[in-house]
Amino acid sequence: MVKVLVNGAKGRMGSEAVKAINNDPELTLVGEADVGDDLAASIAASGAEVVVDLTAASAGYNNTQIILNAGARPVIGTSGFQQQQVEELQALSAEKGLGGLIAPNFSVGAVLMMKFSAEAAKYLPDVEVIEAHSPQKEESPSGTGVRTAELIAAARTQAPMPTSNKELIPGARGANLKDVPLHSIRLPGVVAQQTVFFGGLSETLKIEHNSQHRESFMPGICLACKQVMTRQQLVYGLEHLMD
Amino acid sequence: MVKVLVNGAKGRMGSEAVKAINNDPELTLVGEADVGDDLAASIAASGAEVVVDLTAASAGYNNTQIILNAGARPVIGTSGFQQQQVEELQALSAEKGLGGLIAPNFSVGAVLMMKFSAEAAKYLPDVEVIEAHSPQKEESPSGTGVRTAELIAAARTQAPMPTSNKELIPGARGANLKDVPLHSIRLPGVVAQQTVFFGGLSETLKIEHNSQHRESFMPGICLACKQVMTRQQLVYGLEHLMD
Amino acid sequence: MVKVLVNGAKGRMGSEAVKAINNDPELTLVGEADVGDDLAASIAASGAEVVVDLTAASAGYNNTQIILNAGARPVIGTSGFQQQQVEELQALSAEKGLGGLIAPNFSVGAVLMMKFSAEAAKYLPDVEVIEAHSPQKEESPSGTGVRTAELIAAARTQAPMPTSNKELIPGARGANLKDVPLHSIRLPGVVAQQTVFFGGLSETLKIEHNSQHRESFMPGICLACKQVMTRQQLVYGLEHLMD
Amino acid sequence: MVKVLVNGAKGRMGSEAVKAINNDPELTLVGEADVGDDLAASIAASGAEVVVDLTAASAGYNNTQIILNAGARPVIGTSGFQQQQVEELQALSAEKGLGGLIAPNFSVGAVLMMKFSAEAAKYLPDVEVIEAHSPQKEESPSGTGVRTAELIAAARTQAPMPTSNKELIPGARGANLKDVPLHSIRLPGVVAQQTVFFGGLSETLKIEHNSQHRESFMPGICLACKQVMTRQQLVYGLEHLMD
Repeated sequence: MVKVLVNGAKGRMGSEAVKAINNDPELTLVGEADVGDDLAASIAASGAEVVVDLTAASAGYNNTQIILNAGARPVIGTSGFQQQQVEELQALSAEKGLGGLIAPNFSVGAVLMMKFSAEAAKYLPDVEVIEAHSPQKEESPSGTGVRTAELIAAARTQAPMPTSNKELIPGARGANLKDVPLHSIRLPGVVAQQTVFFGGLSETLKIEHNSQHRESFMPGICLACKQVMTRQQLVYGLEHLMD
Repeated sequence: MVKVLVNGAKGRMGSEAVKAINNDPELTLVGEADVGDDLAASIAASGAEVVVDLTAASAGYNNTQIILNAGARPVIGTSGFQQQQVEELQALSAEKGLGGLIAPNFSVGAVLMMKFSAEAAKYLPDVEVIEAHSPQKEESPSGTGVRTAELIAAARTQAPMPTSNKELIPGARGANLKDVPLHSIRLPGVVAQQTVFFGGLSETLKIEHNSQHRESFMPGICLACKQVMTRQQLVYGLEHLMD
Repeated sequence: MVKVLVNGAKGRMGSEAVKAINNDPELTLVGEADVGDDLAASIAASGAEVVVDLTAASAGYNNTQIILNAGARPVIGTSGFQQQQVEELQALSAEKGLGGLIAPNFSVGAVLMMKFSAEAAKYLPDVEVIEAHSPQKEESPSGTGVRTAELIAAARTQAPMPTSNKELIPGARGANLKDVPLHSIRLPGVVAQQTVFFGGLSETLKIEHNSQHRESFMPGICLACKQVMTRQQLVYGLEHLMD
Repeated sequence: MVKVLVNGAKGRMGSEAVKAINNDPELTLVGEADVGDDLAASIAASGAEVVVDLTAASAGYNNTQIILNAGARPVIGTSGFQQQQVEELQALSAEKGLGGLIAPNFSVGAVLMMKFSAEAAKYLPDVEVIEAHSPQKEESPSGTGVRTAELIAAARTQAPMPTSNKELIPGARGANLKDVPLHSIRLPGVVAQQTVFFGGLSETLKIEHNSQHRESFMPGICLACKQVMTRQQLVYGLEHLMD
């Protein structure tokens, strides 16, 4: 049984995590903390081996330091880390010999979609990304769409086929990120969907993910709590704990 | 048995039509003509009741007049007619009491997709169009995409929900035609696909058409040859013969 | 403003309906009733013009009679009516000159999917139905799947193409309802989906509906409350109020 | 430039392969052979380094032996090998230090679909396979469907969620292969499609492949011709040359 403390336990995501950890037979919830609490003291008092941090993005860097210095393994669910901050935290975790994770997305399905997309792009360089969210979403394209396109561009070893750029109405061919076109759909009735559409010689391949609720992140959080116990270093991206 | 003459019988589409009419037990092929032939004479000689015209767009208007004046029913598969030309030809067909059809698209599936899209838009005004073709296609969006968006805009009785226009990369939200966003995918392995994606309260509806070859137009041409025999007027769009 | 009373207002569906009617600017909620209440008295006291009944299937027939006899228009969301009962209630409503609706499904998207499927089957007789629900669903195929297949079979004017029945593993070709194969998927993460898949000559057409929550029924209930005011007869199926 | 000989060069698949090899800048076609020719002599005469065999299934085992004994690397596109035969050929290739491939499917997209499906099944054990082919296909489910289900069953580490088996019409829940349900669609307008549909907690993942023509096998054949040059052993399945 891995002893887990949830930081940010009263938030929307945190309260789901509390439930999920309570329901996992290999995990035991030993504490809950929130913004304003002394996190180091909470870890010491609870004897937590793993700390799941689901507070604000701005607190992520400091909290990861506190967790590692307290001898626990961080599972960090906030985004907004700079490259250099991640590297510093990786050095610290290696020094302490403690596994850890910083993950922009805990959905197992979304992580698989991105991993498979990068792999397929090695063989099928012609690919476009179509993502759909609710009309309330402020920015286009989505963060997951952008990250998928970046992974594809980095994995691709051949250039995609050239296409005509003659747009009768501007925007028809979507946003272009390193020659991966991205198309953003905004419709009611959709929570979060993404299709990665590959074309080859007389064949196509589609990888399609559909998320309906934040509880879709919980299996990934529970997986991470177990996996970080077996590692000696902090990784960035849930995919590195899925192999 | 309806007696049919094919004009443009040696072209790619025309030669498919010759085969399709020969295979249809309710139709009989009485003649073939091509650019350069005297169409009126061919109609008279063959005794054709229906003339399928699959020649160049530029010849469509004249050929339709010749066919009607020869007492036959036109089934015209060329595009590029002006609104006024269509009206003139409709007046002429009504005067003669001869049914006829001018159709920009003979695919039964594509026509149903457009018809259903217009109908659904009355109840579900939030909708986007995603069309996919091969990288060789010159223009974006496709003609079918544009026509679908126009039909939707005309059918819609409520405004769609507003969405944020904050594009982190320009083009993400696609082309905007009367508040119907259009997204054009260009990939090898695709011939012609279109998805019309509707969103509602906690539900979505998708209408998706996939065409792989010009032979998909043949059932629509055969249907039209039979239907124009039962009408006294020329219509624009195969959907008007499908009810 | 149409005056509406909700019967079964404390149930899961009824409480959603109360909210939806309160939010609709063309409707006003004049009363709530529940099992055990005297429905006729509630109608009289509230002056309701329309009564939405979302109680148990067993009460549907009696409640519809009570509503019509009280001079109000019924919008009935329960299933399980026998053909003869529907006919009796239609006779009663015609006698009273009161519009009404009995609907097994209030989702606008699902109703459009069924309507379009029946229409497409006239032109594309080769069709299969694939429906997906959660693993908790007890029976296969779903009620909507069966109804869709029945509508298709009734609308079809040509026989579908014969297919080989050689199943290497029994069940591969699905359930057969009047030559419409039905396939039932049961997976977590799915609420209610259905794809109606048509094949033609070198083309395919798919109509796909996805429902995530019972709130997807509310626009259909509100639409019905307004539409029954303009009718003089009771109809079976929301599609008859959508034209 | 890898020197390639095609055996079965006059067949439908073989003649496509001849074209594809001629078009690949890293491959050179040094010979063509067919059933009835002395394959060993053709290899010796042409100096072929790789032999692509696209003859009948019954000849596959013998031809692979001949190719290896002639000092060339086999790329075998026939199915129907027994497990023991594959093992014997692997021993022979290891002894000779010659790479080689036996592949039931050369479509890069289909191979990726199967590989990703096996990998996803480790994390998302709830999964069903839906495959679609033309009405002419004799057997259900398809070979690719069966192989996908076997790979999923072998990769899965958790049991899938139990589902109700109450079928109102027999066959609704499909064919069951090691607790992977398989559904076979047979429709005109479809060549070969497969969707692998995974369900998780409030999320779904779909991997969908669509093949339109046998030319979709050619990139996989060319890839194999290059990859076997860098190996010292024969492998079964194109996926083993894609990493």
